[in-house]
Amino acid sequence: MEYLDERLEAYGNSDYYPFHMPGHKRRKLEFYNPYTIDITEIEGFDNLHHAEEILLEAQNRLKNLYQSRKAYYLVNGSTCGLLSAIGAVTQSGDEVIIARNCHKAVYNAVKIFNLRVNYVFPEHLNCGIQGAIDPNKVEKALKEHQNTKVVIITSPTYDGITSNISKIADITHKFNCKLIIDEAHGAHFSILNESITSSIHQGADLVIQSLHKTLPSFTQTAVLHIASDDVDVFRVEEMLGIFQTSSPSYLLMAGIERCVKIITESGEELSRQYFQKLKKFYERAGQLKKLHIFIKDDYEGSKIYEVDCSKIIIGTGKTNLTGKQLYDILLKKYHLQMELCSARYVLAMTSIMDTQEGFDRLLEALFQIDEQSVEQENEDLEDFILQAYQPRKKKMEIGETVHCEMEQVELKDCIGRVSGEFVYLYPPGIPMIVPGEEIEEEFVDIIFKSKEEGLQVQGMRDGGCDRIWVLKEYGETK
Amino acid sequence: MEYLDERLEAYGNSDYYPFHMPGHKRRKLEFYNPYTIDITEIEGFDNLHHAEEILLEAQNRLKNLYQSRKAYYLVNGSTCGLLSAIGAVTQSGDEVIIARNCHKAVYNAVKIFNLRVNYVFPEHLNCGIQGAIDPNKVEKALKEHQNTKVVIITSPTYDGITSNISKIADITHKFNCKLIIDEAHGAHFSILNESITSSIHQGADLVIQSLHKTLPSFTQTAVLHIASDDVDVFRVEEMLGIFQTSSPSYLLMAGIERCVKIITESGEELSRQYFQKLKKFYERAGQLKKLHIFIKDDYEGSKIYEVDCSKIIIGTGKTNLTGKQLYDILLKKYHLQMELCSARYVLAMTSIMDTQEGFDRLLEALFQIDEQSVEQENEDLEDFILQAYQPRKKKMEIGETVHCEMEQVELKDCIGRVSGEFVYLYPPGIPMIVPGEEIEEEFVDIIFKSKEEGLQVQGMRDGGCDRIWVLKEYGETK
Repeated sequence: MEYLDERLEAYGNSDYYPFHMPGHKRRKLEFYNPYTIDITEIEGFDNLHHAEEILLEAQNRLKNLYQSRKAYYLVNGSTCGLLSAIGAVTQSGDEVIIARNCHKAVYNAVKIFNLRVNYVFPEHLNCGIQGAIDPNKVEKALKEHQNTKVVIITSPTYDGITSNISKIADITHKFNCKLIIDEAHGAHFSILNESITSSIHQGADLVIQSLHKTLPSFTQTAVLHIASDDVDVFRVEEMLGIFQTSSPSYLLMAGIERCVKIITESGEELSRQYFQKLKKFYERAGQLKKLHIFIKDDYEGSKIYEVDCSKIIIGTGKTNLTGKQLYDILLKKYHLQMELCSARYVLAMTSIMDTQEGFDRLLEALFQIDEQSVEQENEDLEDFILQAYQPRKKKMEIGETVHCEMEQVELKDCIGRVSGEFVYLYPPGIPMIVPGEEIEEEFVDIIFKSKEEGLQVQGMRDGGCDRIWVLKEYGETK
Repeated sequence: MEYLDERLEAYGNSDYYPFHMPGHKRRKLEFYNPYTIDITEIEGFDNLHHAEEILLEAQNRLKNLYQSRKAYYLVNGSTCGLLSAIGAVTQSGDEVIIARNCHKAVYNAVKIFNLRVNYVFPEHLNCGIQGAIDPNKVEKALKEHQNTKVVIITSPTYDGITSNISKIADITHKFNCKLIIDEAHGAHFSILNESITSSIHQGADLVIQSLHKTLPSFTQTAVLHIASDDVDVFRVEEMLGIFQTSSPSYLLMAGIERCVKIITESGEELSRQYFQKLKKFYERAGQLKKLHIFIKDDYEGSKIYEVDCSKIIIGTGKTNLTGKQLYDILLKKYHLQMELCSARYVLAMTSIMDTQEGFDRLLEALFQIDEQSVEQENEDLEDFILQAYQPRKKKMEIGETVHCEMEQVELKDCIGRVSGEFVYLYPPGIPMIVPGEEIEEEFVDIIFKSKEEGLQVQGMRDGGCDRIWVLKEYGETK
């Protein structure tokens, strides 16, 4: 029997290098014994839910760093920021347009706030990478659904692809809608990576950023920005009061303050050094023969706005390796822990806290693997991905399905029925079907194919993915 | 300008003694540099939302400690446990019965899940302390509202008063309802304080406990127990997936594991020593002449089940001091930080981590203050409290008011209107009125009187409490 804290300690002391979140990269930054600073709302320490003094000042420092209108510390991750932002600008029954590749928290918001949802689908790129949201598609959707109250887009994606938010914001506001941007993976934009502008400065109304993903902050810390004058501050705060604990952790909050301090005091220098290391890495990695490091040019012709090069995407499409195999070799042989693997690539997340040693180890490993791997033409995944993320027929809103009786049926018997579950591949975690959508033959084929390919199918209550919950009222089990 | 982390450090190094949460009492327990163990869901560290390995084992240890059916780590406090438990056993439009002194998270659940709510009011005790819930009142309410799906009770209260949960559970189940107990302040019951039985073992279906309040665990950590066989585990987990971040903190989780370890390995001995200290404290404090330390006998004749003596309630009713004045003297002159003050008492929270020095300092301070204070007969607060927590006329459900147009009117002009806000005194944080209830003259008097008495009125958007938001559709502003 091994205790969690002991395993964490052992891992912390090991030579495993973290090419994953959080952005502090397990660097032993100076901190306190956590028990000695972990308090509650006593005299002199304000109240996060009615911040008037030191927590207001701290949040103002965060706001000033990003030059937003108002910034809120989040101690329940971007999850609670998304729920709060969406809850603040909608009423039960409202119509919303969301990017199909939104985080599960957005779908949860649709469900608990009982919203009517329409989708815009991201472009598909090579290697199965999900691309940007085309502003023209947003305009088309808004024309079709004129009662829409809010548009919700994820930019950047998990893979670092950003959409043209300025243009989407213009369109959205023309239709009198609010724009919420899930910028969970872009907390470093504008402040550490000046070549990519944060959605805060591209016209979004509400922007949610995870601090822990790309910055030196503790896991579970995030920020909600009010970025425009057109947001009801009271409703936002009311929602934050619902979705965040009434006992917020001073440990996590002190961690946010510490992160802001690091960036304010040393961000520029750390950033300069980091981009040097990163540039050198990309230059040298460009010489790999079979493995392929993705750069912006690879996405030429798509609707991409910017590409965040802090996410290193290593493609295996021209080799005999699957993404999972490369991931396993890097982990087991080289003790390099990647953030994720997909069918044809692995993703290494980097931040200003990465060391030259880390980059060197990754590069050396990649060159060795590159040399040992065999060049091979693989079936392109484009068709597969196109099938998986096909728009589906909506028979009922997600929020309405919760009142329906359901039954679990064999996958082979579910064609023509209406799904009661979300089903997605992880990664990228984008639903292939959501509750209330009709199950077609192509969808069932995709599940079987995914399992064959060793991709991780998630969301179904049946862990083995042999049976799916469907609504009773649409059709009967044979 | 002072940074949050620096002020926390300074406080941690000061001689202020914490008679408040969290239960680790800022003792410098051995821990790691938090950055070195703060990771994300990588290989070998499981996933809290689909726990299968080390996090499942850790949660099982927690379950075994409490002998519940299933225990879930909560990293968003009891808040998310209450939302999840209520969401898991209700559908939109369902009727629920809640104790009027429930935590604000319960009211938030009523609002977002659109529940129809009826109340049972706690008994009132002397000194303004809120008492237990009378099982007979629960039975009466269930007879009146036969469609009720769930009963939600807070036991113990913030002041340590418990209700007869066994009896309430029998009644509730007789009416085919679920019973949810907010045991946020009772995580030490059954395991460290064996004289009080946790609701887990009194027939409750779902029990939520804050680990940080009374145990040596980090702020924001809590546990949700499934305590009966009559709960849909899938729906509970679905809700936890909504109200908890998808990036749970390994730091907080390691803190829970550490807490479980401390209790498992040393709980018995720590507990024995603690109760010796506590007993000695109560014996000696019994000799105070004017200040009064509450013990169970003081509540004789009420419907109280048990009293948790770890909460030391120091009454000022027979002195020239208000609760606030005693609180301030203890803080400023003696550097003893209490948990809270009410009109006629202060509350010191203690735990197994308190030191003899802490108890001695409190006792010495109290004897000095006792000697210097003047004996005085004060107006009893009973009438005032009875007025403040009068049942009010419900014109509309809380969840329905969110769709109503509102306007802000002067308090003096709001009689006969319907409130759009929660208004409560803090402490105890029990609403005096909730959205959808009619404002009567007595209520307005209570607000004015509370402000006169220096009590903290909260909940109104107008911080000065001169104006209240009311529904437009019930009456017009003159």
